[in-house]
Amino acid sequence: MGDNLLSTGHSSRLFERVYDYIINRIERGEWKEHEKLPSVRLLAQEMNVHRLTVFKAYQLLKQNRKVYVKDKSGYYVYPDSIMSINDSKDLITSSYLQKNHLSEIHRVPVTYQFSQALIDPNLLPNLYMSEYVKKVFDLYPKVLGTYSTVQGDEELREALCEYFLKRHRFHISADELLITSGAQQAIDLISRIVIKPKDTVLLERPSYSAAIDAFQQQGAHIVPVDIYPDGYDLEQIELYMRQLKPRLFYLNPTFHNPTGYTVPSGQRKRLVELAEQYKCLLVEDDPFHDIYFDEEPPLPLFSYDTEGYVMYIRSFSKYVAPGLRIAAVATRSSLMKHLLNAKSLADNGTPLLNQKIFLHYFSSVRLQQHLEKLRIALHIRKEIMEEELAGTGWKWVSPKGGLNLWIKIPETLPMKSLLERSFDQSISFVPGTICDPLREPNSWVRFSYSYINEQQLRDGVKRFVELSQGLESSF
Amino acid sequence: MGDNLLSTGHSSRLFERVYDYIINRIERGEWKEHEKLPSVRLLAQEMNVHRLTVFKAYQLLKQNRKVYVKDKSGYYVYPDSIMSINDSKDLITSSYLQKNHLSEIHRVPVTYQFSQALIDPNLLPNLYMSEYVKKVFDLYPKVLGTYSTVQGDEELREALCEYFLKRHRFHISADELLITSGAQQAIDLISRIVIKPKDTVLLERPSYSAAIDAFQQQGAHIVPVDIYPDGYDLEQIELYMRQLKPRLFYLNPTFHNPTGYTVPSGQRKRLVELAEQYKCLLVEDDPFHDIYFDEEPPLPLFSYDTEGYVMYIRSFSKYVAPGLRIAAVATRSSLMKHLLNAKSLADNGTPLLNQKIFLHYFSSVRLQQHLEKLRIALHIRKEIMEEELAGTGWKWVSPKGGLNLWIKIPETLPMKSLLERSFDQSISFVPGTICDPLREPNSWVRFSYSYINEQQLRDGVKRFVELSQGLESSF
Repeated sequence: MGDNLLSTGHSSRLFERVYDYIINRIERGEWKEHEKLPSVRLLAQEMNVHRLTVFKAYQLLKQNRKVYVKDKSGYYVYPDSIMSINDSKDLITSSYLQKNHLSEIHRVPVTYQFSQALIDPNLLPNLYMSEYVKKVFDLYPKVLGTYSTVQGDEELREALCEYFLKRHRFHISADELLITSGAQQAIDLISRIVIKPKDTVLLERPSYSAAIDAFQQQGAHIVPVDIYPDGYDLEQIELYMRQLKPRLFYLNPTFHNPTGYTVPSGQRKRLVELAEQYKCLLVEDDPFHDIYFDEEPPLPLFSYDTEGYVMYIRSFSKYVAPGLRIAAVATRSSLMKHLLNAKSLADNGTPLLNQKIFLHYFSSVRLQQHLEKLRIALHIRKEIMEEELAGTGWKWVSPKGGLNLWIKIPETLPMKSLLERSFDQSISFVPGTICDPLREPNSWVRFSYSYINEQQLRDGVKRFVELSQGLESSF
Repeated sequence: MGDNLLSTGHSSRLFERVYDYIINRIERGEWKEHEKLPSVRLLAQEMNVHRLTVFKAYQLLKQNRKVYVKDKSGYYVYPDSIMSINDSKDLITSSYLQKNHLSEIHRVPVTYQFSQALIDPNLLPNLYMSEYVKKVFDLYPKVLGTYSTVQGDEELREALCEYFLKRHRFHISADELLITSGAQQAIDLISRIVIKPKDTVLLERPSYSAAIDAFQQQGAHIVPVDIYPDGYDLEQIELYMRQLKPRLFYLNPTFHNPTGYTVPSGQRKRLVELAEQYKCLLVEDDPFHDIYFDEEPPLPLFSYDTEGYVMYIRSFSKYVAPGLRIAAVATRSSLMKHLLNAKSLADNGTPLLNQKIFLHYFSSVRLQQHLEKLRIALHIRKEIMEEELAGTGWKWVSPKGGLNLWIKIPETLPMKSLLERSFDQSISFVPGTICDPLREPNSWVRFSYSYINEQQLRDGVKRFVELSQGLESSF
């Protein structure tokens, strides 16, 4: 709603003046947490602007979690995001404590596992991998006696450079790559070197839950950017970049988690231009690039970056070997040296063994064969899930890749009871709230079709649909 | 110097009043960075206390880096520690950037590697390890297709509990253990959950360089605690705990890095009592416990902890398999749940493969045999280094375990030139400044005898001694 209002042609200078006026007073503490703000009418009078301008400013402030609305009685100052994190009552009180919401759901053991966007271990190349492990020990007998460099094994980085050039037209050298222990570590390191408390961060709405957690942990001021089946509202993004001067925009433009949407090429190029213009770092997370069903997705944003405004995170854990935890970060920016420092403080380098095993499998022809089979298997599982959901009347956009369906369930279904009853029936899924950067309640759910086998998939979805219908009719 | 003054029986209430008076004004910003403070005489007059009381307060403030002394002209307000970190001039400016000082030295490739406290890969059980790897793949064919839980493999945690009970009398259960990717990650996670900017942290002086970096990165106010061959000055520690209310004391009481000193049992018990009394978390880093030459060191502090005031970090990377990166954190405190959250945001769990390989080697009889041989080999290397240094007149305390000699070289030797010339001659070592929590210049150096073989050790130390003597006579 705020979006459409904001993207009209109305004078943005007046808007900015009002927005800044309010935010400055909040940030300077003149207007305090939970204090009621002047009414739209009063402020418009005081500042000699149209009421609509004030209204829009309040709407954006609300979206940015600077103000909230209570019982329609007016606008109030939102409590400081860092302070609200710090609600621990421990013996030894802690500081920037933050939950990992997703992993709390994953802790519940269930048969019908729809909550983890992981690939069924039976679809992974387990047998082959153990061969590569033997090869690694023959080639590098002291691999376990040796630390990796902090940046990562050079042989692996060289191999990845070659791959990225051939496949995505990345012109990078090995010193522009960092090997991390999974994409999660990459996100964490980037948030730590770039974000300080109250910095603005743009996140897709919905977004990857653990990324939301990581940026919140740094005390970021999170501003959501809606993602649609055909991409973003670029005018909205430009407005945010101009008005809010975000430090970074974390995005997952290819088979987006959780929606499965893919941002088209034209928007990708334009986004890189905007990033340069407004000096906003784009952090492109791309774990599903190879998990397409029919055709390859567009080139990553990083392919269009020449000025160092894109950091590209590519995880290989998901579809090669989750047990290895290998991801790479590519960046042309001067931030690499800071990433290296952060990585060295975080864990002194990813284990060498894991990098070498990955290298040898990754460089083999078998990987391509594995991927082709994997795509077919996942495509079939996606279709099974869609078949079982077909009669429900629920809405989703059929994804062309990735591991998830993002489903709109009836608003009459109470999410909390739905989740509890699902757990009781050994079913897990991800409630949409967890994927919302503002953690607002909604009636979306994420179902991953990648983890359990075809029969279980059918049974599990059937059970869930029955359970939902039972719950709905009981209200 | 300040220590002796502070541990006298002089009225501590007056002292506290003066100390608090000054610190409050600095913290409230009434006395600003680099502003000159009232003279000892003036403040004593104003507060109606003895000059010695004011002098002592200034000495402690100086030690705590709240004030500094310039040209004997008086005391000045020390610049804010967080601000001074933030000196980056990047395109996209970063926030809490911090160097890892040690890893910068390690980046220089040399033949005579005395700077890395690592064990010569030739002394590690490489051959055996590859057998265990094969065993792991036989036992768990899908080990690479599976993520570990965030807390770490349960089988490994159970095995470690048993080991800790038998060996150190730790009464803990598997849910009081977290598996991390090396001790470095453990330190980083703990600093992130416990420390917020300006919190006071006690660190030994000297200390492990990467730990200093990790706490500085969190914006901690670091207060050094001297370590001596026979332990700490416990009165000093109690004074600091009472006055400065530190959040934690990071310590390495067994074959301490870099000095090799071991804190005696009596002090260990007392420290745990003090920690409880003043609610200060003790973070006990214990990577060298098994690297003793003659007799086993005293029990870890954790053995005396009943109230959750000790976190115990035990790295196994060093002497089993650096390439695996396996460490464990034991804690009885309620902070475990926060550690789990931090770990899950940091990397979602240590790779399962690495944990399983470690488990099978760790549980074998071979480990004990390996350790016995390793101790002898390291003991010999230590003695070779001491022999080669015997004629120099330099001072060190012969360590009873660990990997390092901590050597006092002549004050007339300019450290910077010494390091540069050493690099030129393919020798590396760690200058004492890097190990000083305050990074003040000193004339100590850390030489690790664990990494290069016996002949190289002799040659390298000879070269270094010649080079030093040449440099000294040229001044």
